[in-house]
Amino acid sequence: MAEQNLPDIQKNPSEWYTEIIQRAGLADIRYGVKGCIVFQHWSVEAMELMYDFLEKDLKKRGHKNYWFPTLIPENYFYKEAEHIEGFSPEVFWVEKAGTDKLEERLALRPTSETAFYSMFALWIRSYKDLPFRTYQRANIFRYESKATRPFLRSREFHWIETHCAFATEEEAFQNVLDDMETTKKIVYGVYGVPTIVFERPDWDKFAGAARTFGADAITPQGRVVQQPSTHMINQHFAGQFGIKFVDKDEKEKVPYTTCYGPAISRIFASVVLTHGDNKGLKFPFEIAPKQVVIVPILAEKEPKVLVKAKELAEKLDDAGYRVEVDTSDKRPGEKFYFWEMKGVPLRIELGPRDLTAKKFLLFRRDIEKKIEVAERDLVKEVEIQGKALSENLKKNAMKSFEGLIKDVKSIEEVKKIVGKGIARANFCSMKKDGEKCAEVVEKESGGKIRGTRIDTKEKTFGKCVVCGKSAQHVVYIAKDY
Amino acid sequence: MAEQNLPDIQKNPSEWYTEIIQRAGLADIRYGVKGCIVFQHWSVEAMELMYDFLEKDLKKRGHKNYWFPTLIPENYFYKEAEHIEGFSPEVFWVEKAGTDKLEERLALRPTSETAFYSMFALWIRSYKDLPFRTYQRANIFRYESKATRPFLRSREFHWIETHCAFATEEEAFQNVLDDMETTKKIVYGVYGVPTIVFERPDWDKFAGAARTFGADAITPQGRVVQQPSTHMINQHFAGQFGIKFVDKDEKEKVPYTTCYGPAISRIFASVVLTHGDNKGLKFPFEIAPKQVVIVPILAEKEPKVLVKAKELAEKLDDAGYRVEVDTSDKRPGEKFYFWEMKGVPLRIELGPRDLTAKKFLLFRRDIEKKIEVAERDLVKEVEIQGKALSENLKKNAMKSFEGLIKDVKSIEEVKKIVGKGIARANFCSMKKDGEKCAEVVEKESGGKIRGTRIDTKEKTFGKCVVCGKSAQHVVYIAKDY
Repeated sequence: MAEQNLPDIQKNPSEWYTEIIQRAGLADIRYGVKGCIVFQHWSVEAMELMYDFLEKDLKKRGHKNYWFPTLIPENYFYKEAEHIEGFSPEVFWVEKAGTDKLEERLALRPTSETAFYSMFALWIRSYKDLPFRTYQRANIFRYESKATRPFLRSREFHWIETHCAFATEEEAFQNVLDDMETTKKIVYGVYGVPTIVFERPDWDKFAGAARTFGADAITPQGRVVQQPSTHMINQHFAGQFGIKFVDKDEKEKVPYTTCYGPAISRIFASVVLTHGDNKGLKFPFEIAPKQVVIVPILAEKEPKVLVKAKELAEKLDDAGYRVEVDTSDKRPGEKFYFWEMKGVPLRIELGPRDLTAKKFLLFRRDIEKKIEVAERDLVKEVEIQGKALSENLKKNAMKSFEGLIKDVKSIEEVKKIVGKGIARANFCSMKKDGEKCAEVVEKESGGKIRGTRIDTKEKTFGKCVVCGKSAQHVVYIAKDY
Repeated sequence: MAEQNLPDIQKNPSEWYTEIIQRAGLADIRYGVKGCIVFQHWSVEAMELMYDFLEKDLKKRGHKNYWFPTLIPENYFYKEAEHIEGFSPEVFWVEKAGTDKLEERLALRPTSETAFYSMFALWIRSYKDLPFRTYQRANIFRYESKATRPFLRSREFHWIETHCAFATEEEAFQNVLDDMETTKKIVYGVYGVPTIVFERPDWDKFAGAARTFGADAITPQGRVVQQPSTHMINQHFAGQFGIKFVDKDEKEKVPYTTCYGPAISRIFASVVLTHGDNKGLKFPFEIAPKQVVIVPILAEKEPKVLVKAKELAEKLDDAGYRVEVDTSDKRPGEKFYFWEMKGVPLRIELGPRDLTAKKFLLFRRDIEKKIEVAERDLVKEVEIQGKALSENLKKNAMKSFEGLIKDVKSIEEVKKIVGKGIARANFCSMKKDGEKCAEVVEKESGGKIRGTRIDTKEKTFGKCVVCGKSAQHVVYIAKDY
């Protein structure tokens, strides 16, 4: 049963995305709660691997893992006025349990600052307790008013949240910089998704934060997928939650806090959109649910082929690779097609003649080429080609990424770029007084002001693209998912 | 600052348990929602390792991982009458989000059969789709009416749930047996907690199941901690949820389902209670958050000692062990005391003289003995002693376990044993008509009928311990946590 081709990823990215999610078994949207999806095996396995890389890096940086309750008492939210204002439209509330009405409403965590800070107030006493670095991997609930899309925006999603406290603002800021380094190292370095980190404008900060820094990926189709954000909370919450420490000078002080929130399920969407093509998914080797698929050819008539296929699989398994032997009753061509669509990096084709020649063909999903490999080089070659594939995916992603940024000097030019790429423009102000111009941009082009780069101080090259007044910043404008 | 001794674990197990949870940093009960606790780093790290072992075994058995929504629509529950009857007193309900009242109440999952089965109805079509084996690691919510205790019973806890479907009852039952094998292999084989698997009496089955098999651990203090249960659901739910498949004979049939639920956070409690002693925790080597702690002695005056300590730590880290160098400003004696209390399996003590002699002392937490080790044998010896420690913990646990089972012939004897051990008694019936006698047992002794062994068919040795009528079964009676 030959399936239809996938929609064209460049011409119809939205249709392609919807179709690949279903066909590759990434998620099922037919669950009975609006905006909640079932994350299926093929995506969960990849996301578990993605979690591992991030968690290892956070642990190396001194973060200790915790599991906090999902339920947060309403009064915690009211301690920080901006925070409750920002989140209250999105909160799911539990008011009843069994047949009891609860004494206080409980929120399903939309984020856990208030939960962590309530305990920081008990745990942090002295400068010796600082820096205090924590994280948890958790499911998060937000009653989104916007249209939901699998992985990109759903009412329950999966993330890591770090919550840290420091004696000084400088140390807190260094941690925020380290968070961005983690994003670069893992999201680009391992998942192959290039990002730019922006400081968000004042009107787009995390509710309660002093400063927000967000990484953005731009898919080859020209739209932004928001990546991890990291926030300088400063003393905003710590004061309200009564977090204090006795410093070396024996004075009681309020620590500075930060938080960082890599949304694994959303980052997964950018992996799909960044590397995918008209044949389907392409997983970087390190996060592929299966790294190698072995397709025995004519196995039925030649049971020896199947025996050899299993032997090779065992060798790869012993060497720590994730491997599958496709023993289904499909034709080899169908199997090739299927596993290419699923994004498996390498395929081994094994026929009766290969047994005597002690070699086989190794197919690479990214370059779509077959390489002849001697059987004795199996493990070595899988490692080499796996790494080469990941490097190649990264290189291509970066090339596409850079090509999508265009300088613009008028709102007309913004309109032309947005939706197909990211517009680099002069802009009047990132403070409250710039919000009006930002609204014009969004109304005219559908694009949002992503912010100013933080990796480099950019020189303006003209007047504000909206109001024509003197520009203080170079900003980036794009449509997001 | 010398701390007080821990309460005696045999004489005052309850006080010991409360105290060790706080002192070792396992959980904080001061969170603002009744019955919900903060799982702290030292337990979370161990529980993550525990998850790994279980998940690997389930994957090897062909289970694929999923992430299902936490929220379950109320109508799903009403499809299986016994199920809703059993769970409804324990369900947290979400009725509002933002300022909206939801069209249908949503349950925080108290277990996910109904969620999985709603999708099984869409996913399973043919005998080729069977067996269908899934699992998820998830947080679970139950509005417990009984007193909550950290890890043992809380209103949110962490588990794995598997949900599987099979073409025949035989295959389903084989899967249930395999689940018990997993319990034995991991809970005893890795965590060192011995269990007996019982078939539960009819009045203690999982709500909606045909048969329930539960593993029980008995702590050295004589009380049962319930371990993973596995359930033959048969066609009870599948029918109501419209799960059907076309079999080889082209007839439409209803599959048989099973589920298995290892509650990691509860199993963790049994690890604590089974291996602990008056000095604190004792972790099996494989699931210890830190496996080796290195205490440099006189490090301040001898910076070389610190350098060497870090060098050894790096070697162990490279070999894949979890190691910590304690560089705090506490005295060595305090450090010893602290890490013993935390349950770290091995300690390396490193002084200035050891540097020239190229050796060090290795302390084993279980036998409390120091072994002299040549530096060049570091990695090898850590592996040997780590394994030996785990084996020793298992052996001791099994010995204590077996000694706690006593045959009884009267309700007076039951009363004497229960609370200190497990009473083995003759009993009239495991069906509905035996429930009255079970109530008498519980009222008189505080103990519950755990069920009949399934690993062996036991011969009765007298009349029913309560009613004196002919006994059909040998049952086990114990108090649980």
